[in-house]
Amino acid sequence: MNIAIVGLGIIGGSYAKALKSHTNHKVIGINRTESVAKKALEEGAIDEIGSPEKLSNADVVIVCLYPQACVDFLRENGKYIRSDAIVTDACGIKREICPQMKELSEEFGYTYVGSHPMAGKEKNGFAVSDADLFMGASFIITPCEAPHEDVNKLASLAREIGFGTVKITNPEEHDRMIAFTSQLPHVLACAYVLSPCCPNHNGFSAGSYRDVSRVANINSKLWSELFLENKEPLMLELEELNKNLSAIYDAIKNEDREALCELLEKAHEVKQALGE
Amino acid sequence: MNIAIVGLGIIGGSYAKALKSHTNHKVIGINRTESVAKKALEEGAIDEIGSPEKLSNADVVIVCLYPQACVDFLRENGKYIRSDAIVTDACGIKREICPQMKELSEEFGYTYVGSHPMAGKEKNGFAVSDADLFMGASFIITPCEAPHEDVNKLASLAREIGFGTVKITNPEEHDRMIAFTSQLPHVLACAYVLSPCCPNHNGFSAGSYRDVSRVANINSKLWSELFLENKEPLMLELEELNKNLSAIYDAIKNEDREALCELLEKAHEVKQALGE
Repeated sequence: MNIAIVGLGIIGGSYAKALKSHTNHKVIGINRTESVAKKALEEGAIDEIGSPEKLSNADVVIVCLYPQACVDFLRENGKYIRSDAIVTDACGIKREICPQMKELSEEFGYTYVGSHPMAGKEKNGFAVSDADLFMGASFIITPCEAPHEDVNKLASLAREIGFGTVKITNPEEHDRMIAFTSQLPHVLACAYVLSPCCPNHNGFSAGSYRDVSRVANINSKLWSELFLENKEPLMLELEELNKNLSAIYDAIKNEDREALCELLEKAHEVKQALGE
Repeated sequence: MNIAIVGLGIIGGSYAKALKSHTNHKVIGINRTESVAKKALEEGAIDEIGSPEKLSNADVVIVCLYPQACVDFLRENGKYIRSDAIVTDACGIKREICPQMKELSEEFGYTYVGSHPMAGKEKNGFAVSDADLFMGASFIITPCEAPHEDVNKLASLAREIGFGTVKITNPEEHDRMIAFTSQLPHVLACAYVLSPCCPNHNGFSAGSYRDVSRVANINSKLWSELFLENKEPLMLELEELNKNLSAIYDAIKNEDREALCELLEKAHEVKQALGE
């Protein structure tokens, strides 16, 4: 197949490298900043530099831009895409994006299948993209009424490039779960490192500092968009967290050893039940 | 030197294995449950099984028990320790423990130097102890007025078994920093996994879930003791975190993109300034 990747950042770049490393598909890279596309070509991450007008050569189009930029790109360039092509995105939010993407697919005649690769790093850009970024990770698909055949085609492609799990869901469940699994840890990490103690942590810290603070090295523009477009589920998770933090805080304040031990034991049991 | 280790859990067991792997000192293991001491001897983690009465053979005594248990052990058995011996602990809190330990050292005549190895795992017991647990980690010393010579002896021993940094501090600074670097991440992890979403995270999660939830697999008895004995610094850190979480929550609720982006950018800058 000819696979066009729009946006060669960490995710698009990793898709390109993974396709070149693990499959024989032809990879066409489209990137606004030409120097990045040239670098990707030099490094062998793509087979050729494309342009929106040449999207008609693509069997699959993977749009790896910020959420609203995905919609804008397809609104402008969907007309170049063949009606037998599959278009997917890599957006971390789905309720806001999928209906718009679906509408554009109906307008232009191609098939849209939403997806979200559950992988990333705390750094951004083509320079940190990695052929093995998706190895063993989960590939979430929101079919949005696309034909089974096309959903399966995308799922197979995901497995070919190393994903370990394919999870089929709907935009609502996706956004509710992502608020917990991904957005909340990012909020937490940011709030955590804002403590006045943080700049002096060296010599006093170990793995638990390192792990909880890792994703605070955040892309503030991307994540504020993701947070705001998933406002309600994220607010619910923050309220739930606040409730649980307050319960622990109160037990410490009241020196209620039994209540404190019980709360920690409950957390321990959740992890044990998950085999983690 | 003859080095006695009291308590062969993850920390004591790792000290024993590290000493046997990286030095020529003789290691004497003392453990309440005899089967564990026998296992340690069989595995070559210790040279002999000791008893409190035989502490008079030790040049260095490392007590690796729960905080109050350390004090209790020395109150009962300090009389067996030679006056030229150095005694240290491995407690994660220092204001509560050091004055009691210091007093006992004056009563019995040996030298007490407080210390806290900044390493651990989310599992416990001799079975998960590891000769390389301390590799590159920070070794915190609270001298508590011990002679320089003895502090230096302990620092050298720490470097011999792989610690990368030795940090000299006082109990107050130790407890304030540990509240942030270690206790707060443990509270956070526990509060986090108590979300009703947690048991269903599989397929929706990646590195950020894994990292923030890791230490929720907690030893509830040990950590509730640590939290309660460091009540004030930990409450201050929880209040600071609550303030920062609320600021992010409010920005999301008010859809104030600028304020949200600014908060995330501040967090990003803290990590960047630390080179992390």
